[in-house]
Amino acid sequence: MRAVRLHRYHQDPSIDEIPEPQITSPLDVVVKIGGAGVCRTDLHIVEGQWEAAQNPRLPYVLGHENAGWVHAVGEGVTNVSVGDTVILHPQPSCGLCLACRAGDDMRCTNAFFPGLSDDDGGMAEYLRTSARACVKLDPGTDPADVAALADAGITAYHAVRKALPLLHPGTTAVVQGAGGLGHIGIQCLRALTGARIVVVDRNPDALRLAEQIGADETVLADGNQVQSVSGLTGGTGAHVVFDYVAEHGAEMDAWHMTAPGGSYFVIGYGGELRIPTLDIISTERNIVGNIVGTYTDLAELMVLAQAGTVTLHTQKYPLDKAVDALHDLDAGKVRGRAILVP
Amino acid sequence: MRAVRLHRYHQDPSIDEIPEPQITSPLDVVVKIGGAGVCRTDLHIVEGQWEAAQNPRLPYVLGHENAGWVHAVGEGVTNVSVGDTVILHPQPSCGLCLACRAGDDMRCTNAFFPGLSDDDGGMAEYLRTSARACVKLDPGTDPADVAALADAGITAYHAVRKALPLLHPGTTAVVQGAGGLGHIGIQCLRALTGARIVVVDRNPDALRLAEQIGADETVLADGNQVQSVSGLTGGTGAHVVFDYVAEHGAEMDAWHMTAPGGSYFVIGYGGELRIPTLDIISTERNIVGNIVGTYTDLAELMVLAQAGTVTLHTQKYPLDKAVDALHDLDAGKVRGRAILVP
Amino acid sequence: MRAVRLHRYHQDPSIDEIPEPQITSPLDVVVKIGGAGVCRTDLHIVEGQWEAAQNPRLPYVLGHENAGWVHAVGEGVTNVSVGDTVILHPQPSCGLCLACRAGDDMRCTNAFFPGLSDDDGGMAEYLRTSARACVKLDPGTDPADVAALADAGITAYHAVRKALPLLHPGTTAVVQGAGGLGHIGIQCLRALTGARIVVVDRNPDALRLAEQIGADETVLADGNQVQSVSGLTGGTGAHVVFDYVAEHGAEMDAWHMTAPGGSYFVIGYGGELRIPTLDIISTERNIVGNIVGTYTDLAELMVLAQAGTVTLHTQKYPLDKAVDALHDLDAGKVRGRAILVP
Amino acid sequence: MRAVRLHRYHQDPSIDEIPEPQITSPLDVVVKIGGAGVCRTDLHIVEGQWEAAQNPRLPYVLGHENAGWVHAVGEGVTNVSVGDTVILHPQPSCGLCLACRAGDDMRCTNAFFPGLSDDDGGMAEYLRTSARACVKLDPGTDPADVAALADAGITAYHAVRKALPLLHPGTTAVVQGAGGLGHIGIQCLRALTGARIVVVDRNPDALRLAEQIGADETVLADGNQVQSVSGLTGGTGAHVVFDYVAEHGAEMDAWHMTAPGGSYFVIGYGGELRIPTLDIISTERNIVGNIVGTYTDLAELMVLAQAGTVTLHTQKYPLDKAVDALHDLDAGKVRGRAILVP
Repeated sequence: MRAVRLHRYHQDPSIDEIPEPQITSPLDVVVKIGGAGVCRTDLHIVEGQWEAAQNPRLPYVLGHENAGWVHAVGEGVTNVSVGDTVILHPQPSCGLCLACRAGDDMRCTNAFFPGLSDDDGGMAEYLRTSARACVKLDPGTDPADVAALADAGITAYHAVRKALPLLHPGTTAVVQGAGGLGHIGIQCLRALTGARIVVVDRNPDALRLAEQIGADETVLADGNQVQSVSGLTGGTGAHVVFDYVAEHGAEMDAWHMTAPGGSYFVIGYGGELRIPTLDIISTERNIVGNIVGTYTDLAELMVLAQAGTVTLHTQKYPLDKAVDALHDLDAGKVRGRAILVP
Repeated sequence: MRAVRLHRYHQDPSIDEIPEPQITSPLDVVVKIGGAGVCRTDLHIVEGQWEAAQNPRLPYVLGHENAGWVHAVGEGVTNVSVGDTVILHPQPSCGLCLACRAGDDMRCTNAFFPGLSDDDGGMAEYLRTSARACVKLDPGTDPADVAALADAGITAYHAVRKALPLLHPGTTAVVQGAGGLGHIGIQCLRALTGARIVVVDRNPDALRLAEQIGADETVLADGNQVQSVSGLTGGTGAHVVFDYVAEHGAEMDAWHMTAPGGSYFVIGYGGELRIPTLDIISTERNIVGNIVGTYTDLAELMVLAQAGTVTLHTQKYPLDKAVDALHDLDAGKVRGRAILVP
Repeated sequence: MRAVRLHRYHQDPSIDEIPEPQITSPLDVVVKIGGAGVCRTDLHIVEGQWEAAQNPRLPYVLGHENAGWVHAVGEGVTNVSVGDTVILHPQPSCGLCLACRAGDDMRCTNAFFPGLSDDDGGMAEYLRTSARACVKLDPGTDPADVAALADAGITAYHAVRKALPLLHPGTTAVVQGAGGLGHIGIQCLRALTGARIVVVDRNPDALRLAEQIGADETVLADGNQVQSVSGLTGGTGAHVVFDYVAEHGAEMDAWHMTAPGGSYFVIGYGGELRIPTLDIISTERNIVGNIVGTYTDLAELMVLAQAGTVTLHTQKYPLDKAVDALHDLDAGKVRGRAILVP
Repeated sequence: MRAVRLHRYHQDPSIDEIPEPQITSPLDVVVKIGGAGVCRTDLHIVEGQWEAAQNPRLPYVLGHENAGWVHAVGEGVTNVSVGDTVILHPQPSCGLCLACRAGDDMRCTNAFFPGLSDDDGGMAEYLRTSARACVKLDPGTDPADVAALADAGITAYHAVRKALPLLHPGTTAVVQGAGGLGHIGIQCLRALTGARIVVVDRNPDALRLAEQIGADETVLADGNQVQSVSGLTGGTGAHVVFDYVAEHGAEMDAWHMTAPGGSYFVIGYGGELRIPTLDIISTERNIVGNIVGTYTDLAELMVLAQAGTVTLHTQKYPLDKAVDALHDLDAGKVRGRAILVP
């Protein structure tokens, strides 16, 4: 089969012909890929930023945001059958450790992360994953239309889901960054809360989109954004700040936009927080980490997506044009999410 | 192997020689039984009370409260190895349905219940269960010492665990029924809350034991128990009532012992509630159902048990004397929990 | 001033001329009434159903659903000033007892309930309440437009608010009774959850309205409603059932519509539940009482109302026509909520 | 009356003769002080560290940790009477703002903080506070025995209380700093959870005390404490870290002791956190601010104290020796908490 493989860091991947993955253990599932999202993390992988943490043996196949059709299953698989349309949780979990038993998939002590850890990803014709990664979809769903929910979507949703108890009517939520993740987060907030939604971005186009999909107020990140949010919230800041950027100073802005007793949800990454402990305790604020999400997060998000409550902007590329997609993403030329299709 | 099999309802089971269970699917685990609890539910099964609900093909092996050592494992099993000491969750779950993914094991849509559903139980030398039922114990643990935690223990703990957010210091918890389940519930409450614990039982011996293991107050169920609880709580009733009886009128007593805004946790069964909806809304009280518990409940309880925080009273019988154990239980002659040993 | 006073049970109230209420303690607030809702509970009061529970000295002024303008304040009042537009929590609380300190207003040990307890209500030109009952509104709000939220609204909202953690995307909520309270509950569910909303009512008109304001499915209560809900939920029932009826058998229907692990929220009243404890524990279902709501519930609901997310159907009557309004309500001739205006 | 007044920053306060405080508003309460705790924050006030934040007009009376007997009450006070023994929440709240209505006393928009804000504190014969600050105690309680719970105690308890849902059996809690606050925190953890308690301190005496009052393990803060905690937790760190120090590098140690998915509770202050957002998201850790506590926190803690579950080490000084007490505290010569008595 064809696959997008990284051979060397700081060098474009190539489209290689490699053997199809095989079922090797009882809970294995091989999926024929219908859509594979291209993510900024793929650029980071190519740049070697994940080498220390994940240390995959090169060459290996990129792609951690996948949907498709079940092609083969191990003998212990009971939740999906050959032919089923599925979207894949990016990190298959074991189902046996204590974290899995509590529904806390991301803390699974035996998980792997195809396309990120030392396991081939989904920018290929086929991918091997496990039964516990598969969320079954309506048969008529086009995997390419939803693939971006497998990583960008679940991550955006997970943070919103955790914050729901904090966002009763009368509260304010700030969304910093209305891009790939943020524009899903805004839609989830609109669907699931009565909170006022204030969106901050440096791109006026992103703010226009934000208004269309649910923002109550938008703030251009022109250097005065902390002050603007203060002005919109009677000087106190927001009850919850969702930071889908968290680099280049946005992380400190987000902290300063958070009201006393409020919570700063970190979702993006790259920057560094520098906060006196006095500031944390005197205002009793919280900083909340967020990484991907649980299987049930993905299943719930698919309910919203299949009902049309959450929609995606995507730009499709044939698998053979994967390098173009990566280059376009790097150059800021992708509108919405780039998706590789067979 | 030898096994305690029920051949006909309303008739004592017999000790039969039958083939050992075999591994037939990848997540199967065969356990050599070290201790099998004898439960009032076993008497109910013999009496045919579960026939309609579970409809097992007779003859079958009784026993749903089991601990032992791993004897054989399927090829997909990664959490336990042959020789491990284990206690078994009574209802093996699939790990793939949405309920399992949320950690809600008892709502698994593919579960079975050995010794209750149409599957052989653990009053035998060996039992077939699944990987997801196994909680690994310190190797030196004697399974017979802890087996009763596999059903009585998990059930008592589960209810207490759910009620913890309601039981801050200054609140009152009533435990109705200080027997097999109740005496574990009392110990869990003492270990995990600062609530005042009031124990109600009609047996003065049970109340004496309750005092030794953590009750702050005891009330003899002599017909005035509702009034007594009212007196102990300034006329309001208890914030939480744990009813390990819930039959013969105890269920209405428990409701009447529950304070406005409080919660009545039903754990025992057999009686019928008759409550005007006006009584429910005018006082904003809750009625909370409880059945067995999750895998993590059992794992947490084993932490308390292995630390000596929760202890059990047991009375051991050889497997061949299973019928004696059942008769003794029926006759009220068992102190603590009867456990069959190899 | 003029006031609608009940002189004798089972007899129409009369419009009397009585002295205006005065400030007598530091936290007192006297409100000029702009709208006073007419509630089925007023009919019950006239029929003497609340005599035993509340025992007011007759004659007294009816009316427990009020909004208006602040007319006078005690010296300790700091949250509202003369002239402010306000809606009133129906049960003023003390702010000093432990329940109040936990935000649990309805369990205040020093509360009273004007128009229900032995205190004059708001079917009059002026009402005496307390600072802690006042929710300040945008000055331009017409009290008559929102008064129905002071009791019907808060009660409907309170139940929905408590159920939010149970109603993630993929769940089903049944609303039984799409009348005064139910049609507010439906709007709150639509605004605050991604759950599927199934509305059950015996009135086809009510179902048509339900569809317009957010119901995903409607079920005519024609005797087969339990079966219909079962069919709509794959045979399992709903995760949460909101029962705004709870009499004439609806209460048992609601219980039977509740899925294993689900919760039956009782809000209406009048009927009696008869449930074997075995049914409660074997399915681990809950029954949740609901009465009015907290101050913050009312404040949150007003945010939704002032944003236009929750709207009301009302029918206005001059204060002098209060008896007509009561008769119309009794005769089923009121569309939406009857509101008395000055 | 005599009072300990600060006249100038960086200069010892003096014992002055000043007029007794008077009732001036309906909810005022004047308390005859029975015990006033001496806190490290008092040293910080003298050093001028709170000048910018609180800006009190000098001279003013120090003392924010007080208990005593009710001496006079305003006409709106209904929860306490002259002669009652009381402990005082340090920050009287209004009871009318939205934060107060939700039980969130520390976010009251009208609060003051006697002895810290521009209001006389309790190092005096009498103190003016408000009805909402008073927690009534058993009449026989000696205020001097419990005064330290009014600030040190409530703060330690509040953090533990918030963390309870995270600390089920099988989890590990680290307490960093076993001094005035920490030794109360340890006792609360022992009383209210089944978690393993690991205490870290640089003082071996403090660790010995920690062992006596509930620590399961102690770690000397000798520079290897992060590694030691890692070793005690299988390399993962603790589920919750309570940091009662949070300065001089302890704050980063505490962060590094926190397990993936875990929470770092900041209670002390003085240091600065520097954390890459990547570290926050990749491990999904949380940082939780904590400041004093709610009225119900204090009421609950008093239940534990009056039951003997939480005990205090105190060292008493006559009011006239307040400066000695401050000097002793600064010199590290106070064992437990210094308390001024009349």
